Amino acid sequence: MRDALVEAAFELFSERGFEQTTIDDIVSLAGVGRRSFFRYFPSKEAVVFPDHDGCLAEMTAFLGAADPAGDPVEQVCDAARLVLRMYAGNPAFSVGRYRLTKQVPTLRIHELSVVWRYERTLAGHLRTRYAARSDGALRADVIAAAVVAAHNYALRAWLRSGGEGDVGAAVDEALQLVVDTWGNGAEGGGGGGSQDDEVVVMVARRGTPMWRVVQGVEAALEG
Amino acid sequence: MRDALVEAAFELFSERGFEQTTIDDIVSLAGVGRRSFFRYFPSKEAVVFPDHDGCLAEMTAFLGAADPAGDPVEQVCDAARLVLRMYAGNPAFSVGRYRLTKQVPTLRIHELSVVWRYERTLAGHLRTRYAARSDGALRADVIAAAVVAAHNYALRAWLRSGGEGDVGAAVDEALQLVVDTWGNGAEGGGGGGSQDDEVVVMVARRGTPMWRVVQGVEAALEG
Repeated sequence: MRDALVEAAFELFSERGFEQTTIDDIVSLAGVGRRSFFRYFPSKEAVVFPDHDGCLAEMTAFLGAADPAGDPVEQVCDAARLVLRMYAGNPAFSVGRYRLTKQVPTLRIHELSVVWRYERTLAGHLRTRYAARSDGALRADVIAAAVVAAHNYALRAWLRSGGEGDVGAAVDEALQLVVDTWGNGAEGGGGGGSQDDEVVVMVARRGTPMWRVVQGVEAALEG
Repeated sequence: MRDALVEAAFELFSERGFEQTTIDDIVSLAGVGRRSFFRYFPSKEAVVFPDHDGCLAEMTAFLGAADPAGDPVEQVCDAARLVLRMYAGNPAFSVGRYRLTKQVPTLRIHELSVVWRYERTLAGHLRTRYAARSDGALRADVIAAAVVAAHNYALRAWLRSGGEGDVGAAVDEALQLVVDTWGNGAEGGGGGGSQDDEVVVMVARRGTPMWRVVQGVEAALEG
């Protein structure tokens, strides 16, 4: 019945427009009662994003089961890819919804609240993993925002194009910027990578004072 | 008249609650007509955030006048500080609004749209400055999101505390994480910093093959 309501709603939205369609119109076309609608959706806006509740639950379960020894930045990037998979799984629906959302301000605002819930879920995972850091909560919020921005950058480009090209590769490339910046392998990242193979090279100008060289040696050994 | 409407609205919101107050109640208390309300505010939600339009205009002007040779990351952080200044300029109003917004879902959603407009303004500045980079637009979106997340992390902590402590210092500290990560002085940042004083130090294990040393020298000289 949920699917029938979504189908009826989108049929009417594309025929008459979102604003001109009432919930009564939707239940009438779907052949169900008004109370059935509200059993599934709190509002007319919510029927436009029927799949996000399920995806959020999947994301929460995914992060809850994540390896405590794994790179938390890689993990939240993988969690964001669950959202991508949902969009990419039904390109025609996703592109149609994108076009509808662009035209209707209340839907754009509703979408922001959907994105916000994902962002808080990612941030919650990172906050737990960074609990031992003095800047853990700040770092968690900043990285979660960066992951969402990178994911949506690639996703929106794909939606704007009408669903052309390999969105999975585009999202991977965008998320790589976040992993390179904040992941365990990054400068200033979580650390713990192996340095077995490392060769650090000295390049100093002639006449460099010895204290600068010593400082450099110390910094290199701490790195 | 705009100020009188805001004052009347907040008086009623704190007395009766946001949902229980109508626009008619507000104009009646302010002693003006209903059309006057809509001349200033598109909705009841908008009257809760009366100062953001002005702040957004100020931010746009500030970024438009920014030095093209300056560090764009520092510039968007300074632009975000304009929002902070607005909140910190009137702590009692800001804390009261924060508490009201937390209780009313439609206000929380409206606030997300306010934040989104700031984020797009910051991203627009960065996109222009990074136009020559192949990853410029992606990088711009990610950094803008990071700036907003860092700013709001410190701002919200201050609002939650009831306006205690030095919020300016807290926001500076939060934004520093973004500048250290993405600014011109950072690894992988905009580059262009002076390396006159640099001493790079070689630390290699005994028996390191010569090709690894040469590779290290090359990498150090390119850095």
